[in-house]
Amino acid sequence: MLAAVLTVYVAPAAAGSGIPEVKAYLNGVDAPNIFSLRTLIVKVVGCIAAASSSLHVGKAGPLVHTGACIASILGQGGSRKYNMTCKWLRYFKNDRDRRDLVTCGSAAGIAAAFRAPVGGVLFALETVSSWWRSALLWRAFFTTAIVAVVLRALIDFCKSGKCGLFGTGGLIMFDVTADYVSYHLVDLPPVVTLGVFGGILGSLYNFLLDKVLRLYNFINEKGKTYKLLLAATVTVCTSCCLFGLPWIASCKPCPTDTQEACPSIGRSGNFKKFQCAMSEYNDLASLFFNTNDDTIRNLYSAGTDDEFQISSILVFFVASYFLGIFSYGLALPSGLFVPVILTGAAYGRLVGMLIGSESTLDHGLFAVLGSAALLGGSMRMTVSVCVIILELTNNLLMLPLVMLVLLISKVVADAFNANVYDLLVRLKGFPHLEGYAEPYMRQLSVSDVVTGPLLTFNGIEKVGHIVHVLKTTGHNGFPVVDEPPFSGSPTLYGLILRYHLLVLLRKKDFIRSCTASNLNASKHFSHDEFAKRGSGKHDCIEDIELCAEELEMFVDLHPFTNTSPYTVLETMSLAKALILFREVGLRHVLVLPKSSERAPVVGILTRHDFMPEHILGLHPSLFKSRWKKVRLGKLKVANIC
Amino acid sequence: MLAAVLTVYVAPAAAGSGIPEVKAYLNGVDAPNIFSLRTLIVKVVGCIAAASSSLHVGKAGPLVHTGACIASILGQGGSRKYNMTCKWLRYFKNDRDRRDLVTCGSAAGIAAAFRAPVGGVLFALETVSSWWRSALLWRAFFTTAIVAVVLRALIDFCKSGKCGLFGTGGLIMFDVTADYVSYHLVDLPPVVTLGVFGGILGSLYNFLLDKVLRLYNFINEKGKTYKLLLAATVTVCTSCCLFGLPWIASCKPCPTDTQEACPSIGRSGNFKKFQCAMSEYNDLASLFFNTNDDTIRNLYSAGTDDEFQISSILVFFVASYFLGIFSYGLALPSGLFVPVILTGAAYGRLVGMLIGSESTLDHGLFAVLGSAALLGGSMRMTVSVCVIILELTNNLLMLPLVMLVLLISKVVADAFNANVYDLLVRLKGFPHLEGYAEPYMRQLSVSDVVTGPLLTFNGIEKVGHIVHVLKTTGHNGFPVVDEPPFSGSPTLYGLILRYHLLVLLRKKDFIRSCTASNLNASKHFSHDEFAKRGSGKHDCIEDIELCAEELEMFVDLHPFTNTSPYTVLETMSLAKALILFREVGLRHVLVLPKSSERAPVVGILTRHDFMPEHILGLHPSLFKSRWKKVRLGKLKVANIC
Repeated sequence: MLAAVLTVYVAPAAAGSGIPEVKAYLNGVDAPNIFSLRTLIVKVVGCIAAASSSLHVGKAGPLVHTGACIASILGQGGSRKYNMTCKWLRYFKNDRDRRDLVTCGSAAGIAAAFRAPVGGVLFALETVSSWWRSALLWRAFFTTAIVAVVLRALIDFCKSGKCGLFGTGGLIMFDVTADYVSYHLVDLPPVVTLGVFGGILGSLYNFLLDKVLRLYNFINEKGKTYKLLLAATVTVCTSCCLFGLPWIASCKPCPTDTQEACPSIGRSGNFKKFQCAMSEYNDLASLFFNTNDDTIRNLYSAGTDDEFQISSILVFFVASYFLGIFSYGLALPSGLFVPVILTGAAYGRLVGMLIGSESTLDHGLFAVLGSAALLGGSMRMTVSVCVIILELTNNLLMLPLVMLVLLISKVVADAFNANVYDLLVRLKGFPHLEGYAEPYMRQLSVSDVVTGPLLTFNGIEKVGHIVHVLKTTGHNGFPVVDEPPFSGSPTLYGLILRYHLLVLLRKKDFIRSCTASNLNASKHFSHDEFAKRGSGKHDCIEDIELCAEELEMFVDLHPFTNTSPYTVLETMSLAKALILFREVGLRHVLVLPKSSERAPVVGILTRHDFMPEHILGLHPSLFKSRWKKVRLGKLKVANIC
Repeated sequence: MLAAVLTVYVAPAAAGSGIPEVKAYLNGVDAPNIFSLRTLIVKVVGCIAAASSSLHVGKAGPLVHTGACIASILGQGGSRKYNMTCKWLRYFKNDRDRRDLVTCGSAAGIAAAFRAPVGGVLFALETVSSWWRSALLWRAFFTTAIVAVVLRALIDFCKSGKCGLFGTGGLIMFDVTADYVSYHLVDLPPVVTLGVFGGILGSLYNFLLDKVLRLYNFINEKGKTYKLLLAATVTVCTSCCLFGLPWIASCKPCPTDTQEACPSIGRSGNFKKFQCAMSEYNDLASLFFNTNDDTIRNLYSAGTDDEFQISSILVFFVASYFLGIFSYGLALPSGLFVPVILTGAAYGRLVGMLIGSESTLDHGLFAVLGSAALLGGSMRMTVSVCVIILELTNNLLMLPLVMLVLLISKVVADAFNANVYDLLVRLKGFPHLEGYAEPYMRQLSVSDVVTGPLLTFNGIEKVGHIVHVLKTTGHNGFPVVDEPPFSGSPTLYGLILRYHLLVLLRKKDFIRSCTASNLNASKHFSHDEFAKRGSGKHDCIEDIELCAEELEMFVDLHPFTNTSPYTVLETMSLAKALILFREVGLRHVLVLPKSSERAPVVGILTRHDFMPEHILGLHPSLFKSRWKKVRLGKLKVANIC
């Protein structure tokens, strides 16, 4: 409830895992408040509260968001709102550095969550980021190296147990070194089976999650009370589940050859007593009544084939699968990673038990492979999950099997639906720009999707006109055109940003007549004024007050215009324009006319012009051909085979 | 000699490691014959011969080249020259798929060389490739997963020792699991020292390698006999070194508590007898008289602090350092990776011995860290080297230390010179396009670097003119402009490639008069004719014979023109044009005029226009400002501090 109240009343942006928001940000979509100080605090406190309430949520996603938040706040030089600013950090005030910092921050998040520094880098590379440079790779590596060194130092420091649960883990969370190293060609069929069903279960997970989130969105829209009620209901149900389900499991006698205390009473341990007699234990309670980490460790451990009953594992798997789906959409910080790993481990053990003596593999190995299969099926990551699992379990010898399972489950699941993060991004309505062009885009040219009247400014423009345009439109970029007498014929001079116009208007550095000024602009403005602002509240045109006289004056836009905008011809294929837009990472592309008789610029392309909804809205006939293309493509493939 | 003779007389492209060639290819530079079947065969045979001659060369680089070769030959559907073609593979006949295949092939090479599937993917990503897509990541992962599964199956199959040296290794080449896990904060200073000197030694390695290669190039240019003589000289010197140096080491008495035979006589083993008495061994001979793999394993092994004398390690380190530098430039397949790992291991042990009792770390751990330091200092890879070392040694617990050492050595070495592959690419004269713009490019606009008269074709062009232009220039792309009466004013129609023009001329599908034809082009041509050709011999204009009558006819270029070329305005900043060129992966960019009164296209930018040599040749004054900028930049940083 603490987590839900904080999230609902203080920082609604802290709900969920935060990975979709970070992914969208790195794609160029700046959702409000996702990186504010307030969100950061609520995320940290809420995540602790949610995880400790035994809700079936993870902490990896919130840690990624936390890392990204810290990076963004550092990048903007502190929080202006709370008067905590730091001057030397102002050199990061541009899009690219901010983006790099956030990428490194999210890498650090995964590195901290799983103590997997290399996995963190790869996660940021594979899942979160949309652009990647070689320099960024090694900056992210630097970040996670620091995380690793700090983690290792803290583990050293906490060895004596003075840091609660933290010190006991060691650098490898679920160490299975040198266990179950033996497998042969005959073990391939069960592993392939595991991968196939993992893929199916993973895509089903995404499908159900999508449906449940739509339902939750419907409820949450009704008001804050409904949000709290929903969170409370699910928490109570979860607790009932956790406490009620172990009653249906029968007690098992303690094994005689174990070194652990049995039954164990206290925090961790494989043998929970629950309702059983003194020399017995309840295996289902052992799974439910542990922290997620301990449960995963128990499931992964080797030589424990007889410790669990098949019915208990089945109940745990089903409960974990659905609790994970129902817990994610609540209005509190919650991750998906750990629930999926946990569910996957149970799934793997279940498959191992069902296959029984057909395979010589240890059930612990099946659990690890099951986690890989479900992660591959739901998140569709390959290299990063592989390395994360490697760093979690510290057993390289099973690498070939993990890779195989991941590939199979990913391929199977890709046949059904998209990965869970793409799904969440779409559900949140972010205009995420994909890196590839849809087939129907090849049939269109740029001029087919440019809509609306184009608003341009003259090189020396009347203040009143600028104010009017800024007040009546929401555009963020305007072409600047030089008309006679300043040039022979109308000529494109460049592109000016809304934000820079606001700075000009606020400064009131106007001229009286429509003639070229020889003002040295750099004298009046410092480059800091045009630097990228933080994620806080932005200036808006309504805040700037100008008198009637000022409105009649002029302003020289030339010194403040970007004279090198990227351009395309109006006959350019839309698919190729998308590649330019996406690969170079643009916000505006100017559209030039084919024939020289027309205006020097005929349109402006933004992210929204590339959205399928926009294009298919303008050209509904393509919607049919879109599917025809797909079908034709499949037919072609069939012919080749 | 076999390797050198094969390389010199059969396939000169097989010399060296091949990684620079693959890197240049993936950047868009197509060097002749690098992926031919002949090169592949010579590479494989030559690599075996060179490695078994006890020359100080590695096999990882040649394996990368081998993987890339196989990928490229598969991609072009076999070898036309040797009549081994396969029809269904023709779907890969385009730039992008070919590039993806070669990337996957080079990932497979590293995966096979070090049995490091994840390391292979990361190596391809970090070092070899210039562009990267999410889809490519998982295709490369798929490739290396297959490599891992096949390797694992072969190891299983070869367990009984029927495959020579291969079966004995196991999946982890230098397994050090669970050895030397203990380190604390006090061990940081020695590790940092190791990293700093590793960086210095690594950059010195690159510097010396550069000088030696320039000398070798000078000798090699004199003729084939000189090449063979050079290779023979270095081989004889190496053998003398290997056999002569152990004489200077004193004999050590065999340890009493070892499980191994001592002295060992035979293939592997830590205790070589050499010239010593029966119960003694020569530690330097143990290092020199083993395969590289065994030597590395010996140096990495824990609990062997007393096995080696400091003088032996020092001699071995110096010998290995310089033999590595002198062996690389010979005319035979040779890698850099393994020599650097080996030298680094000796360097690490040496540092460990020099530090002595100041540090509690095992000398085996120092050897591993030394390898990381020298790799970081010479190759400047971070994530991939980290993962490769992890996969070689299977010890996750030292990950924080490895990361730290890599970072320090990379940062230190970056202060001195570029990484070894960039250096080799530059030495070979490939026009490699960097991903970032040099500062002086920001001062130039596109029109400043466009040179030479622009050659354009009309939409319907006279055959004779095309033939003349193709014969007199080497350009690969020509703008197509529609003039009146086909359009109101001269209008840019698109870009046509030299290769497509050659296909048109060969087909002789001409028209008699200069009027628009209503021929349906697709009837006369199959798309296969315009597909990207393999790396074999290309058509050239001299091979096409046309009679005088045909030269007077016309050809309609419209159906064969790319109507969506990427364009920039002539006032565009050169730095931004470079980003477009590089990020989108282009070969030609058309330059449009700013004012509409001029011709519809004023120039064409290619890779060569972005080369620093070209730009600084045109604008020598920038050469000064280039350095001024750097100095100013440093000054600015100093001011801030």
